[in-house]
Amino acid sequence: MTSAPDAERAPRATGALTARATDFPRWYQEVVARAELADSGPVRGTMVIRPWGYAIWERLQSALDARIKEAGADNAYFPLFIPESFLRLEAEHVEGFSPELAVVTHAGGKQLEEPVVVRPTSETVINSYFAKWVQSYRDLPLLINQWANVVRWELRPRLLLRTTEFLWQEGHTAHGTEADARAYALRILRDVYLSTMEGVAKVPVVTGHKTARERFAGATRTWTCEGMMGDGKALQMGTSHELGQNFARAFGIQFSDEQGARQFVWQTSWGVSTRLIGAIVMAHGDDYGLRLPPALAPVEVVVVMVREEPEVRLAAEALVGELGAAGRRARLDDRTDTGFGRRAVDWELKGVPVRVEVGPRDLARGEVTVVTRHDRAKATVPVTGAAAAATDALATVAGALWAEAEAALRTRTVEVADVDEALEAGAAGFARLPWSAVGPAGEDRLGAEALSVRCLQRADGTLAVGPDDEGDLVAVVGRSY
Amino acid sequence: MTSAPDAERAPRATGALTARATDFPRWYQEVVARAELADSGPVRGTMVIRPWGYAIWERLQSALDARIKEAGADNAYFPLFIPESFLRLEAEHVEGFSPELAVVTHAGGKQLEEPVVVRPTSETVINSYFAKWVQSYRDLPLLINQWANVVRWELRPRLLLRTTEFLWQEGHTAHGTEADARAYALRILRDVYLSTMEGVAKVPVVTGHKTARERFAGATRTWTCEGMMGDGKALQMGTSHELGQNFARAFGIQFSDEQGARQFVWQTSWGVSTRLIGAIVMAHGDDYGLRLPPALAPVEVVVVMVREEPEVRLAAEALVGELGAAGRRARLDDRTDTGFGRRAVDWELKGVPVRVEVGPRDLARGEVTVVTRHDRAKATVPVTGAAAAATDALATVAGALWAEAEAALRTRTVEVADVDEALEAGAAGFARLPWSAVGPAGEDRLGAEALSVRCLQRADGTLAVGPDDEGDLVAVVGRSY
Repeated sequence: MTSAPDAERAPRATGALTARATDFPRWYQEVVARAELADSGPVRGTMVIRPWGYAIWERLQSALDARIKEAGADNAYFPLFIPESFLRLEAEHVEGFSPELAVVTHAGGKQLEEPVVVRPTSETVINSYFAKWVQSYRDLPLLINQWANVVRWELRPRLLLRTTEFLWQEGHTAHGTEADARAYALRILRDVYLSTMEGVAKVPVVTGHKTARERFAGATRTWTCEGMMGDGKALQMGTSHELGQNFARAFGIQFSDEQGARQFVWQTSWGVSTRLIGAIVMAHGDDYGLRLPPALAPVEVVVVMVREEPEVRLAAEALVGELGAAGRRARLDDRTDTGFGRRAVDWELKGVPVRVEVGPRDLARGEVTVVTRHDRAKATVPVTGAAAAATDALATVAGALWAEAEAALRTRTVEVADVDEALEAGAAGFARLPWSAVGPAGEDRLGAEALSVRCLQRADGTLAVGPDDEGDLVAVVGRSY
Repeated sequence: MTSAPDAERAPRATGALTARATDFPRWYQEVVARAELADSGPVRGTMVIRPWGYAIWERLQSALDARIKEAGADNAYFPLFIPESFLRLEAEHVEGFSPELAVVTHAGGKQLEEPVVVRPTSETVINSYFAKWVQSYRDLPLLINQWANVVRWELRPRLLLRTTEFLWQEGHTAHGTEADARAYALRILRDVYLSTMEGVAKVPVVTGHKTARERFAGATRTWTCEGMMGDGKALQMGTSHELGQNFARAFGIQFSDEQGARQFVWQTSWGVSTRLIGAIVMAHGDDYGLRLPPALAPVEVVVVMVREEPEVRLAAEALVGELGAAGRRARLDDRTDTGFGRRAVDWELKGVPVRVEVGPRDLARGEVTVVTRHDRAKATVPVTGAAAAATDALATVAGALWAEAEAALRTRTVEVADVDEALEAGAAGFARLPWSAVGPAGEDRLGAEALSVRCLQRADGTLAVGPDDEGDLVAVVGRSY
């Protein structure tokens, strides 16, 4: 039997949490704090990732890492500290990052002869090693990834979305030809990023490439995944850059080709960060808190004992055991000295996909209650079939989160004809219009209203590999984080 | 059929690598470089962990992380940057770390009002959050671990052993009683560290606690795992500290006990680092390079094609497939444009436990050659049974590495009566003598000769939990890294 969401608890939860429609940024801040995802650090803009948030990150890492390895890249680790002089070697790169750098001037009790910067990204240091490691065409492609912290001083920090220090992976590769580099940048975009964001996190994303204005400092082309958040704003969730030969020339990364001629390599770099946790909060969250896609949930099924009674404990523990044996991440909530309602609200806040409530009255009838987080719907099921019902419910939640997010993206994306219309439509979602109707001048007008071209793509939504002044390029316009 | 190690290749390999007996530090440096484990970073004392070294680290991380979670601790992440004032809150702690700090004075294009230090360890920042999170006895124990990079400015860096930046895990916990904190510090020592070092890395370790002089800055007791390296020197491989109430008082971490009284918590912290990779090099390596315990080897079995011929490739690929299907990490070496001998030497340098050589002559007889890395012994086996033979050989290598290291530790540890004898015996291995015959004055004498008390333990080698002036305490003395 499926009943309507539990009306009696709704006021408590909404009373405690600001509604998304009322104040989305405040709702976000409250969810991040009360679901215990993250907290502000003592130094401006830094953050503490709390166990619940970090467990989501671990699952994201694991999904990404498997795909990165499948794409042939090896993990390695390069130093946090970069000599200031390295950054100056690529002109656009240093210009892009200079305002955000943190600089170590003293160490070991002395002033340093040359200040060192804390890496904002690692192109420069990694490419100084690529110059040593690449000699012959046999050394290519060279495919390296690292999991690391990076620092970009933030004046307007927002937890998980924009912080002075964040965790990420950054891939760096070198190839013998431009075509090979492009193919690899796109492989990462599709087989690693898109696959994780849509397949695992259940967040649909719009893909395309950045305009010259929005491109990564030092790249020739930046491919991007843009998600739509619950307020209609865009979040850049991951980027994959073609670097051309810019860093190769700056760092002298050359190889002897099969004919023995010296050539500069063609390169890519690509990264996603702890910002993805923020994307999941904002893409799936509702007025009751977080809603986690099962594949990323630290706990997939929480089994809540309504009261401490021997038969309740027996049934709840058996169910947790059965779910665990079936490979599900299940947790027992036996904190019966805290009120049942408060614990239920807390698990909803934390976004656990499926909750099974085990109480003496249900149990007397041989039943337990299964609650799906996405719609907060309750169903009473026989206790003997509860593990199977909870497992089925997980698939339901995963499908429903995807369908909701996909519908939101579709209904909030409108086709428009010019910048005037884009200014209006882009304030509430994404506006798509011919790139020829925008251009750099149009980007200025959009920028003045806090909008931007999130990416360029073909009219049918696919990636446009040719030059920007060719074919039927479409600009996707929106506000962004 | 098992034959003696291949004599014809020995001169090549030893010719290339300095013998351990000739110059151990130089041998170490060469192995780290030529096995492509690590390289020096551009900033003094920093390092690049190359893919082969990082893959070993990933396997160590995975073994440690599973055990840490089994011990009930949750992973989280705390900021890299710590306000300078935080470090000053615990007097011994700041005194211990001040000379090694890297300080950020400029960021975002401006001079900072308060300089921030790059974490040398995270007791201070983590405990400032514990003070917020711990309110009641119900919040205890609070068990947190983080995987992170830390920075301690090094004047005499050595790759993987002592670097300005290194990767580690650091656990931080808070407990309601001293007994609970001690039990947890010891649980980590045994169930996480000892279990990984001995069970996975196959490096036997001596355990005990540090003297007051050697203790972690801010701890009341430091438990340690000391390994013996190939030159008889000690390497501190991991430590687990009891912090008493030192940080609790400095940061005001209090809880209400069951009677409602306010109490300070009792704490522990514990860490192991990328230094463990160096330990594996030095404990197991021989004059031909690295010897990896199978559980940590990025590649367990390399299948080397002697020559590019259709039947050779067919057999080699089938074997890699069979090993992979059986859950083994197998790699095909089909780089037949490089000489076979050179590739064999390279896989020995890299420490791959088992090598299967597939050549046309052996194959014509229906055979392949299985080589175990620890003794470089060759056996020809029928190609149909090669996967099983390689798998058996992995167990042989694991057992042999343990047995060799254990015998080395046993034979190079001697019982002595006084400091004079310890000065002599400790120069070539470990010397054990009554702590009552050493004392702080003895420590001065040992220190003057570059020796130290590595740990205190009971006469039977077990941990001594009581006070240091009690019972039959024994000091283990040695040189150390």
